[in-house]
Amino acid sequence: MIYKSSLALLTDLYELTMAYGYWKLGMMERQASFSLFFRRRPFGGNYAIAAGLQTAIEFIEAFRFGESDLTYLEGLKTPNGEYLFEPKFLDYLSKLSLNCDLYAMPEGTPVFPYEPLLFVRGPILEAQILESALLNIINFQTLIATKASRICEAAEGDEVVEFGLRRAQGIDGALSGTRASFVGGCHATSNVIAGKHFGIPVKGTHAHSWIMAFDKEEEAFKAYADVMPNNCIYLVDTYNTIEGVKKAIAVAKTKKEKMLGVRLDSGDLAQLSIEIRKLLDEAGFTDAKIMASNELDEWVIRDLKMQGAKVNLWGVGTNLITAKDQPALDGVYKLSAIQNEKGKWVNKLKISEQLVKTTNPGILQVRRFYDKEKKAFADMLYDFEKGASDPCELIDPIDPSKRLSIRKGEKGRDLLIPIFSKGKKIYDAPMLTDIRLNTEKELETLPSSVRRFLHPHSYFIGLEKGVYDLKMELIYEIKGKK
Amino acid sequence: MIYKSSLALLTDLYELTMAYGYWKLGMMERQASFSLFFRRRPFGGNYAIAAGLQTAIEFIEAFRFGESDLTYLEGLKTPNGEYLFEPKFLDYLSKLSLNCDLYAMPEGTPVFPYEPLLFVRGPILEAQILESALLNIINFQTLIATKASRICEAAEGDEVVEFGLRRAQGIDGALSGTRASFVGGCHATSNVIAGKHFGIPVKGTHAHSWIMAFDKEEEAFKAYADVMPNNCIYLVDTYNTIEGVKKAIAVAKTKKEKMLGVRLDSGDLAQLSIEIRKLLDEAGFTDAKIMASNELDEWVIRDLKMQGAKVNLWGVGTNLITAKDQPALDGVYKLSAIQNEKGKWVNKLKISEQLVKTTNPGILQVRRFYDKEKKAFADMLYDFEKGASDPCELIDPIDPSKRLSIRKGEKGRDLLIPIFSKGKKIYDAPMLTDIRLNTEKELETLPSSVRRFLHPHSYFIGLEKGVYDLKMELIYEIKGKK
Repeated sequence: MIYKSSLALLTDLYELTMAYGYWKLGMMERQASFSLFFRRRPFGGNYAIAAGLQTAIEFIEAFRFGESDLTYLEGLKTPNGEYLFEPKFLDYLSKLSLNCDLYAMPEGTPVFPYEPLLFVRGPILEAQILESALLNIINFQTLIATKASRICEAAEGDEVVEFGLRRAQGIDGALSGTRASFVGGCHATSNVIAGKHFGIPVKGTHAHSWIMAFDKEEEAFKAYADVMPNNCIYLVDTYNTIEGVKKAIAVAKTKKEKMLGVRLDSGDLAQLSIEIRKLLDEAGFTDAKIMASNELDEWVIRDLKMQGAKVNLWGVGTNLITAKDQPALDGVYKLSAIQNEKGKWVNKLKISEQLVKTTNPGILQVRRFYDKEKKAFADMLYDFEKGASDPCELIDPIDPSKRLSIRKGEKGRDLLIPIFSKGKKIYDAPMLTDIRLNTEKELETLPSSVRRFLHPHSYFIGLEKGVYDLKMELIYEIKGKK
Repeated sequence: MIYKSSLALLTDLYELTMAYGYWKLGMMERQASFSLFFRRRPFGGNYAIAAGLQTAIEFIEAFRFGESDLTYLEGLKTPNGEYLFEPKFLDYLSKLSLNCDLYAMPEGTPVFPYEPLLFVRGPILEAQILESALLNIINFQTLIATKASRICEAAEGDEVVEFGLRRAQGIDGALSGTRASFVGGCHATSNVIAGKHFGIPVKGTHAHSWIMAFDKEEEAFKAYADVMPNNCIYLVDTYNTIEGVKKAIAVAKTKKEKMLGVRLDSGDLAQLSIEIRKLLDEAGFTDAKIMASNELDEWVIRDLKMQGAKVNLWGVGTNLITAKDQPALDGVYKLSAIQNEKGKWVNKLKISEQLVKTTNPGILQVRRFYDKEKKAFADMLYDFEKGASDPCELIDPIDPSKRLSIRKGEKGRDLLIPIFSKGKKIYDAPMLTDIRLNTEKELETLPSSVRRFLHPHSYFIGLEKGVYDLKMELIYEIKGKK
């Protein structure tokens, strides 16, 4: 819905002023490549779950400057009152259609710091103006898919329902956040529009206001069970939770339909759920679920599990949909190679005072190596055009004393796959339910020590030796020359 | 753009199952009133800046269940495979048009915990199904407007540009977040689509990639100054910041156009900006701005100011657009009154183990009282229908030992104003630039001790004695009865 029409102006102004500059200098067709990657491991874990690609594809497919966009740009002025863009440039934009190549990791792939989630290769003007939107889409969905996967990991297979609409950051913060939660492993959502657009299962029964709209709690329970006998999870904490459970049980006993469960949204979830389980079991409702919500995240859920809480259906809202403890992924989009005037590709890096912030040069592919048990043991960043040597040596770019030799013939799997070729989509996007299964399957290939969400075992990510040597060379060159 | 078409399914499923219940029981026309308020002071400050009303108005005006919405709802099933809604109910929804009253605080109003930002009064089915969307819209925009106002306060009148698109939580997290930043006091944005849709001034020049696309830094500066001489803020930290400034100065000296300034995005902003100011002034560019970005928020800006930093143009991204230190406002939407079967209004409250979480009963208006210097000194919550007594006594609902007598004839100002009457809009929404000015004007009415963003002086918010007494009565009644 939201992405079907062109959102070409979903961009920072400097992308357009730079585009204007490249056009004005006749450089707009110069081939360049930009990589999107993050630096900081989200939530103190080890990796992120790549997400948002399908949304990015829809954005790119719809991309064009519409009439109202151009009219708006035409009116923009510089601080001293001159028009910002000349009409011929806007004319150029009006005819622009994208001709880039896009390679990306499929959604659901675990991705580590510094690894490109995608690269865009093509005319510099085009590759540049996609920056802001790609970052917006990929950063957010990857963040939320990652958070969801951690929460689902903590829930140990229990059903997790995403409840974040009311606290999400805007309409699309909810809609695309719900999508990403599902990619990361959530089973359902309360968000109906996400159900409609993405086919995600929707769940929900009633709120405190339903109870309060009746004189007595039991009356409200009875009314709900009457009107919706097959979708009845009783919210039991409006007045007194244990009394609420007893009333729900009394009502449920009068019904022929199965009692789905009870929900609590406040109080000591560990202790209450243990008492409630006892009451439900004694009444013969051994299948009835105990659903809990209220400021849950992976840490709270794990803690409740350790305390023996009997919750087996989790409603997770604010902390998931906003990724409260780290509400942004620090993904960046960096120029890594550009053709010079003679058409020769030149690899680029952006240096920084800190080595960790210095980028890796060239158009890089990511290869993941697996052991005999099909568990991943290392990732290699290597030059996409040149390929990797065989056998090859990996060097940790932050601590070059850490090295790993990959023996001859070791296959591995390349994670970046072609999505667009010269502006044409050549990728059959999977269904969202298959993406969700892919996440699960991919996570199974990681050793449990790497998946651990507190103080995980570090995973080897190395530059292929050729890339490492080039990086060092470029750093010395820049520090010497500039 | 995004709100112009109906988003009736932007809701949690339980709103619709409850709506179904009210319809099925023939209660759907029963009059009820819901209030939207938050409990926790955002960012440790004192108040929030109400925002999002215009977006909510557009949502309500466009509200209707479209054909594809109904088709989707028709297919929903309960866990045991029955259809969730019966066709007659969907038929009812297809004809539904809203008939509610909406009262709300104008955008830009400082609002304190427990004060209704709005209330919706009307048929319970309608008032209920607006919950999720109103919370989504108002919570997020109020959060970001508040964060922006704090950042602008720290910037002490310097221009603040919102830079958050690439890290925002989805497309609308950027678009409506930019809008809210402007309501809160930001001067401009990098986000072009927000410029187009809301008329917010847009700013931007070039990125590191521009510098890297050329062989040498000075060449890149010269090229940019050539193509866009009147919109040239040089980004100076690609290689070495001070050397970058010297090169920018050398290029600017060859130009007849005024040098707008330099921007730095890394390094020690305090020390670098002091050195840069010296270099610019020595070169005669005393008007050139020094713009800084890089993980800024109100605390960093205040700290930089205290260190004598010479930054006078601030680009604020992630920490503003995601409200990083508190990425959600805890706004809730609670039933506060409902007509009984005989048509008599009954005030409602939701009790909680903690007194602070127990809601206030009835449909409440907020009156703000001002002293002779036109500074606000207290807010009173009183019954909208009954009005307040004169003189009146205010009681702090959390600490009832704190009381305040308002002398006879004291006027005050009612903050909730009519927006919709029986579904018809009766409010002329101000222009966004006027909303921004309103925020400024409203903030001036608060004593500086109340505005302080760390450990602010507490501000008196009291229940009118009649409301307080009713609240106590209802609590005793519920605790006794249920």
